[in-house]
Amino acid sequence: MTTIAIIGGTGPEGRGLGLRFAMAEHTVFLGSRDNSKAEEAARRTSELCLGITVDGKLNSVAARAADWIVLSTPYDGLTTLLRELAPVLAGKLVISVISAITFQAGHPSLMELPMGSVARQIASLLPASDVVSAFHHVSAHDLLVPERSIQGDIIVCGDSDDAKAKVMALVEQVRSVRAIDGGNLDNSHYTEEFTAFLLDLNRRYKTRTSVKLLGI
Amino acid sequence: MTTIAIIGGTGPEGRGLGLRFAMAEHTVFLGSRDNSKAEEAARRTSELCLGITVDGKLNSVAARAADWIVLSTPYDGLTTLLRELAPVLAGKLVISVISAITFQAGHPSLMELPMGSVARQIASLLPASDVVSAFHHVSAHDLLVPERSIQGDIIVCGDSDDAKAKVMALVEQVRSVRAIDGGNLDNSHYTEEFTAFLLDLNRRYKTRTSVKLLGI
Repeated sequence: MTTIAIIGGTGPEGRGLGLRFAMAEHTVFLGSRDNSKAEEAARRTSELCLGITVDGKLNSVAARAADWIVLSTPYDGLTTLLRELAPVLAGKLVISVISAITFQAGHPSLMELPMGSVARQIASLLPASDVVSAFHHVSAHDLLVPERSIQGDIIVCGDSDDAKAKVMALVEQVRSVRAIDGGNLDNSHYTEEFTAFLLDLNRRYKTRTSVKLLGI
Repeated sequence: MTTIAIIGGTGPEGRGLGLRFAMAEHTVFLGSRDNSKAEEAARRTSELCLGITVDGKLNSVAARAADWIVLSTPYDGLTTLLRELAPVLAGKLVISVISAITFQAGHPSLMELPMGSVARQIASLLPASDVVSAFHHVSAHDLLVPERSIQGDIIVCGDSDDAKAKVMALVEQVRSVRAIDGGNLDNSHYTEEFTAFLLDLNRRYKTRTSVKLLGI
């Protein structure tokens, strides 16, 4: 079992992933810039499923204590945060679930990214970490319902085959989920951007969509 | 039944779509810049399924004779071709199946697009046509086997609700296919780019992938 810190772990996706990782018997820390918010999010998350406990900590404390780090913050402010955390994250496995999407009149649109993907930008800010991209197309709402199976595939992209294999194994510990080897980290461009399309579909069809890759 | 011209119809995707539209009892013209190539492609396509006939014509002749036009050419040369054909295509429904993808050492990558998508660029070149984007994630290989069901969804994007509804109905005449309303024409950005990701998956998994959208 692994110790996993979720940086920006108080939002629905961070809490949902924390819940699922704790259900898979990992030690989970939900991180926040505000210790009391982290503790409150951890308490609420632990209440969702009998027999699991997640803890709340400051982002920096959570990152230091963990082997694997999930980045689940908004894109805005990410660069500043990672400059602070880079020394703590060196040598660790870092999983980005972030897409750079804004909403204009309810309609999702993509932010300009200097390197084509958030994951590639993170890798450039954390040269001593193994960066992997995953969990983009999964609904936070579904993650937060412990008894719910997750229907769609989870696409995992990364340049290190070893780190990618670890994340794919983690993905498949979430009930019913299939991990897809999405190729190198630059391919995170595709999964990050397709997230915006799924959000637009969700809005139009009034549902929560996910993606299944057929033929694999 | 509708008369459908497939511009650049001698390649596998053009022939495959032509075959499926003919199987749905539409009148189909496969277009080429070279009349004998068009006729040869039409003959080979007609042989694939008993009881159907598609005809080969010059692109310009096919476009003039048809009500609906499918653009299935390479991205290179598209602007020149559309400047020539614009008067003929005015007032008609134009369906783009094109993605701007190049291959470098077998690895698909995206070409820079001035307007974010091929479909948007086509619409700017054909201001008097209704432009719709569709059929991006379907395998030409599968289309060309008449008895094969098509597994993935086909996402349809367009700014005209009426034109989009017509194309969605056409899509669902292909055996077993579900059409998804992909929103406005700018959303073609997502489906065009995701095509490159699927091609990369195909290469790595040695298969032919397609996409099913769950939750709809």
